[in-house]
Amino acid sequence: MIPLSRKLLLYVLVDPACPGGRSAVEQAHEAIRGGATAIQLRAKGIPAGKLAGIGSELAVLCRRHGRLFIVNDRLDAALACGADGVHLGTDDLPLEAARRIAPEGFVIGASAHDPGEAVEAERAGADYLGVGAVFPTQTKADVRATGLDGLRAVVLSTRLPCVGIGGITARTAPEVLRCGACGVAVHAAVAGAREVEAAAREFREFLDGKEASHA
Amino acid sequence: MIPLSRKLLLYVLVDPACPGGRSAVEQAHEAIRGGATAIQLRAKGIPAGKLAGIGSELAVLCRRHGRLFIVNDRLDAALACGADGVHLGTDDLPLEAARRIAPEGFVIGASAHDPGEAVEAERAGADYLGVGAVFPTQTKADVRATGLDGLRAVVLSTRLPCVGIGGITARTAPEVLRCGACGVAVHAAVAGAREVEAAAREFREFLDGKEASHA
Repeated sequence: MIPLSRKLLLYVLVDPACPGGRSAVEQAHEAIRGGATAIQLRAKGIPAGKLAGIGSELAVLCRRHGRLFIVNDRLDAALACGADGVHLGTDDLPLEAARRIAPEGFVIGASAHDPGEAVEAERAGADYLGVGAVFPTQTKADVRATGLDGLRAVVLSTRLPCVGIGGITARTAPEVLRCGACGVAVHAAVAGAREVEAAAREFREFLDGKEASHA
Repeated sequence: MIPLSRKLLLYVLVDPACPGGRSAVEQAHEAIRGGATAIQLRAKGIPAGKLAGIGSELAVLCRRHGRLFIVNDRLDAALACGADGVHLGTDDLPLEAARRIAPEGFVIGASAHDPGEAVEAERAGADYLGVGAVFPTQTKADVRATGLDGLRAVVLSTRLPCVGIGGITARTAPEVLRCGACGVAVHAAVAGAREVEAAAREFREFLDGKEASHA
């Protein structure tokens, strides 16, 4: 069985509201072709029935390609659509409650901005951490960036696999790995790119250390 | 054990955004003192962590008073906070999926606007139906009212207990019961009233057929 940390190398957040006019399923499909190892459906504010519908398509797509599929925030929709897991941010359901509701083996990710939150999330039963925002980002303009030092501090505080998130580009992705993160989570930089597949592929080249061939 | 239909006689929807400045817990507390038999927490757009927090307080309050407690839309928050059930509208999670996720005995309510939807919801595993809007209502201004005839048609199409909802006043509540509904669901008319307890009490007097003493 592939360890979770390996599945989180290039974690692409797809969103029906992403600029570019592609559906979330199209975004995911192209990102997977480009090398995304995990997909997260983040679709704040759309009705749960629609969310579960999109989620069902993504679950089938990801299973077919052997990629991890996570739904943001809504554990119920995640369970309904057959996702592998849910990602819970700071304002979402309490981790303990989610752990109690979810079946065994269901992946629960949590957000951590500092070592205190990381330790707490590990204690509460999270399987992985999304750590950031590593760099300043448009998606969460109100969040202060942790920087690479902040990321490193979180990685050192927990045994959980950590994914850096926030403002990461293909070129900075290797630095995120050098902090001890097992991968990078990206949103607009891939799912909102003009060429989603190419954007994902560029991330993979840098993450895999093969970017020299393009230099 | 009290049958579900009895617990649905006066079903009050509380909402942190309700006019009047009361918290959802205050609304529920006063409504229960006035005779509400069931409380639904409807709080669209607030983060799940906060929803589950308010829900936990309401679950304790309702259990202490022997009232049914239902959370609107979010099955995950309903399970997390210890509610008795969830109410799923047309745009919410599919009923079959919710039934699969929820533990045995967990109440699942569904919305039905006509006999077709009622039959479908019964087949899919709903425990009760919210039927309406019976009368025109501000809360859902875009919804065409079913009228009392429409309500009666739904009641006759299903074995599930039916609650009338939408624009019902204390004075029209008995007509709703005469259509075969087991109760009335009310939102702004109680939770948004100047005197929540008095508003709930007036509904109970009409529902219990004791309104003559006030005539």
